[in-house]
Amino acid sequence: MNFADNLIERIRSLGHPLCVGLDPHLERVPAPFRQGSMSPADPETPKAVQAFLGEVVDRLEKRVAVVKPQIALFEQLGWRGLEVLDALIDCCRARGLLVILDAKRGDIRSSAEGYARAYLEPGAALEVDAITVNPYLGGDTLVPFTERCRSHGRGIFVLVKTSNPGAEDLQDRSLEAGTLYEAVAGMLADDCRRLVGPKTGWSALGVVVGARHPEPAERVRELLPEALFLVPGFGAQGAGAEQAIRGFRSGPNGCEGGIVNSSRAILYPDAESWETGFEMRLDEAIDRLGEAIR
Amino acid sequence: MNFADNLIERIRSLGHPLCVGLDPHLERVPAPFRQGSMSPADPETPKAVQAFLGEVVDRLEKRVAVVKPQIALFEQLGWRGLEVLDALIDCCRARGLLVILDAKRGDIRSSAEGYARAYLEPGAALEVDAITVNPYLGGDTLVPFTERCRSHGRGIFVLVKTSNPGAEDLQDRSLEAGTLYEAVAGMLADDCRRLVGPKTGWSALGVVVGARHPEPAERVRELLPEALFLVPGFGAQGAGAEQAIRGFRSGPNGCEGGIVNSSRAILYPDAESWETGFEMRLDEAIDRLGEAIR
Repeated sequence: MNFADNLIERIRSLGHPLCVGLDPHLERVPAPFRQGSMSPADPETPKAVQAFLGEVVDRLEKRVAVVKPQIALFEQLGWRGLEVLDALIDCCRARGLLVILDAKRGDIRSSAEGYARAYLEPGAALEVDAITVNPYLGGDTLVPFTERCRSHGRGIFVLVKTSNPGAEDLQDRSLEAGTLYEAVAGMLADDCRRLVGPKTGWSALGVVVGARHPEPAERVRELLPEALFLVPGFGAQGAGAEQAIRGFRSGPNGCEGGIVNSSRAILYPDAESWETGFEMRLDEAIDRLGEAIR
Repeated sequence: MNFADNLIERIRSLGHPLCVGLDPHLERVPAPFRQGSMSPADPETPKAVQAFLGEVVDRLEKRVAVVKPQIALFEQLGWRGLEVLDALIDCCRARGLLVILDAKRGDIRSSAEGYARAYLEPGAALEVDAITVNPYLGGDTLVPFTERCRSHGRGIFVLVKTSNPGAEDLQDRSLEAGTLYEAVAGMLADDCRRLVGPKTGWSALGVVVGARHPEPAERVRELLPEALFLVPGFGAQGAGAEQAIRGFRSGPNGCEGGIVNSSRAILYPDAESWETGFEMRLDEAIDRLGEAIR
């Protein structure tokens, strides 16, 4: 099944496009789960991360369509961190959650082939539904990923316009025609069209478009009408719900066209009890996004 | 000690800038080391990779200054692959080899912090001397890495002009002034200057500049006079020794200013016996590069 069809059908049935980011910031892991020093070198730390995120994932079943683990924060724990990620992915899949691995990988073709094998094949060592990809090396380096979209129903989200302060350093550079991020979007257009799902008309080749600046979202939507947007930074990074869905367009049950990620604001609430804070923040994010798309 | 000083002093004493890429392409692992099906999912595969690359590393001691494992090809084996990489890095360090991890990481600041902790701190889970970094997200995302260059004597090599066919898709785009790769080089200039080592005048902030097109190498050298070049693709990807060192400049014992990586041509020789082929190709690469710099 096409990844976009799969994702969009789940979003339609849940009524909101919230994606929860699984980002184990060690210094923020809530008190009930902390073990040992919580430093990367302490062998107790991976266990604490596993217990914490396992609890989060249990609470997400049937409430969100998709989660996004940030692999950097698992890698900081070395191979033991990837072992935790492996178990966590199994746990997500068992609970019916789609998994987008936020890996931002990109390399020459033979190495990109290694990443595609690592994440996007049936029986892969860390098998997920989709990953995020960095386009700086150019079109040929995306081929191993788009091949798996076609052959194995996987998805990719290519970085186009990110939400960090330095995004303007390169992505907003003016080319002889347009900006760099527009050139990246242009480079993706053919593949994006080719990977459209038959059921929903959305493509398994999506893009990362930050929520801080809504104008680029509208421009990318013009260039890539079928691309799903992965919008980071809802909540903690300050974007409102309407701003976050700016690049969406009307669908059968309100507007659609991507997912909106929130991580810190949900995982690490300021509250007396972690459970209460988590539930409140999760419900709040779901409500706000559900309302915005309706 | 500044990373560039450390690297350049070793290169001067050995008389050549060869870096050997440790790239476990599963289908090419030589016959004497193969175990089981050599597929990513087979638990025998990591053992075969470990045996093979362990043998390679043993043979590199005191002959090359630096090695470059390609993490994608370890990641395809999941956490067991990182476990092998971990052991391999220990083995390299025990043999006095510097290790540049070819990870091409790049992410928003809080995630980049995770990668910096994973690879560039004392006692890190996978502690190496330097890593390769992707600049697409912009200057703020490089800070966690340059901080470790300053505080812990580490190095980074930022992708500027890569050697793959699609490199031209974005990197050669004309901006209103110059090209994108020149803009990337320009963005790095201040940090590059700040990270110069007191002994050799070379910087711990280096750049990846492919060997296929020598003109960009000369242009990047103008923009970043102190940056060490990591030049991939010597041998297999067809660049000659003179072409590979085009961006170098004259030093006390011939020209210097970077390292030239060869992987497939050395690790996977066409020869009756792997040992004979490996030794021959290694000697050949060392000789050709040594001659070129003199």
